[in-house]
Amino acid sequence: MKNRVSIIKIGGNVLDCPEALSRFVSLFVRYPGNKILVHGGGAMATETAARLHLPVQMHEGRRITDAPTLKLVTMIYAGWVNKDLVARLQARGCRAIGLSGADANCIPARKRPVKDIDYGYVGDIEASGVNTPFLELLLLQNLCPVCCSITHDGKGNLLNTNADTIASTLAVALSANWDVALVYCFEKEGVIYNNSVLPVMSRKFYGELKEKQVITSGMIPKLDNAFWAVEKGVSRVCVKHALQLDRDGGTELCP
Amino acid sequence: MKNRVSIIKIGGNVLDCPEALSRFVSLFVRYPGNKILVHGGGAMATETAARLHLPVQMHEGRRITDAPTLKLVTMIYAGWVNKDLVARLQARGCRAIGLSGADANCIPARKRPVKDIDYGYVGDIEASGVNTPFLELLLLQNLCPVCCSITHDGKGNLLNTNADTIASTLAVALSANWDVALVYCFEKEGVIYNNSVLPVMSRKFYGELKEKQVITSGMIPKLDNAFWAVEKGVSRVCVKHALQLDRDGGTELCP
Repeated sequence: MKNRVSIIKIGGNVLDCPEALSRFVSLFVRYPGNKILVHGGGAMATETAARLHLPVQMHEGRRITDAPTLKLVTMIYAGWVNKDLVARLQARGCRAIGLSGADANCIPARKRPVKDIDYGYVGDIEASGVNTPFLELLLLQNLCPVCCSITHDGKGNLLNTNADTIASTLAVALSANWDVALVYCFEKEGVIYNNSVLPVMSRKFYGELKEKQVITSGMIPKLDNAFWAVEKGVSRVCVKHALQLDRDGGTELCP
Repeated sequence: MKNRVSIIKIGGNVLDCPEALSRFVSLFVRYPGNKILVHGGGAMATETAARLHLPVQMHEGRRITDAPTLKLVTMIYAGWVNKDLVARLQARGCRAIGLSGADANCIPARKRPVKDIDYGYVGDIEASGVNTPFLELLLLQNLCPVCCSITHDGKGNLLNTNADTIASTLAVALSANWDVALVYCFEKEGVIYNNSVLPVMSRKFYGELKEKQVITSGMIPKLDNAFWAVEKGVSRVCVKHALQLDRDGGTELCP
């Protein structure tokens, strides 16, 4: 039987609210078994960019990362947010260790090729590239990796990678040797349809909801990542509210 | 026979100059054996503080760290400087892993008690607190820890700790099981006396040079840290030019 590990991803909505963050941290610490936390950066990147007079450029919900923006997001994601989370988790007895994709070459990436849009210092990643032996070493030491959404190209450049993609890619990579549960935490209780939470959603029904525009742009990249993980053998994938991590519920995704 | 490890500390002068940093990185990568890199932050903290309109407060060469300054130095030291170094080292085949003192509870600290001066979020550390089993685990995996000068108090607070002190404390902690060499890199070729580099300096002679004011304020905390390491059983302690890491020379400190 494979060992079990849970990969839990939190987004900006939790990170931006001190009270929510504090509640989430205590839920996460009590979450049973081996676990990995994956986080983005929240609104702090946008706010700090404004204070430093850096223009924020977005394309279809994705940040365009020029050199000063890369420096800024590395400072915030790998610096403040990651280390603040690690210190909070350590204070509650969770043996957290913060990682970027550059650390121990955890998550190597390739700078996204320029097609219609030049996304700048953005890294695309593959499950086959993940340094799973290193992550497994940490997990077997009862350490809890806390992964930020910064990767590197192996040529000395840091890159900005979508945190949802980091979570699904780690889940797929580890599922070769581990029984992996992937939990996307966000600000809703799951996928809402007809005013109630869908307990289960199939790929086919997801397609129908997208067509009907029940599921809107912000959720699509997240659910695409989530369904990709389902297809690639991750045992359990769900989306749920960050502050309901200790409860059943949310939407379970199935093939 | 004990395994050997070298702890190499670089300061702002290397980090602030892209060309020097690039040369230092290639020297460090070729440095033989197990090694740990310890770094401070350089002028970037002061520059970014100015751009964010944060006042910089210093007392006897030490930064006073209020809450916004702590956030800033964590962003810069643990975020940009640490990850940029790790990415550069990885690009040259060195299996670097960036760490703050919070990660895996590597270097727990105690917030400095307020006496005449309130240094704010500044952490004092002890060799007995260092998580040496974790660092040893990394070294035995041929990983190269890259330690920034951010620690934590175990109660959820990050703290700012002098990088020279981190280097000497890690050296003393590891010297229980390892044969440790501690190398302080800086902008001079060693301790200069009568226009030439002293090849060796004893504690007694150091006292005389301080009295004659040959050794001035900036160097004193560094050399105090260095001599403390000598006394506590670190096999070899020296100060030398960062860009002469591959050559003999510099000043060796002896009891």
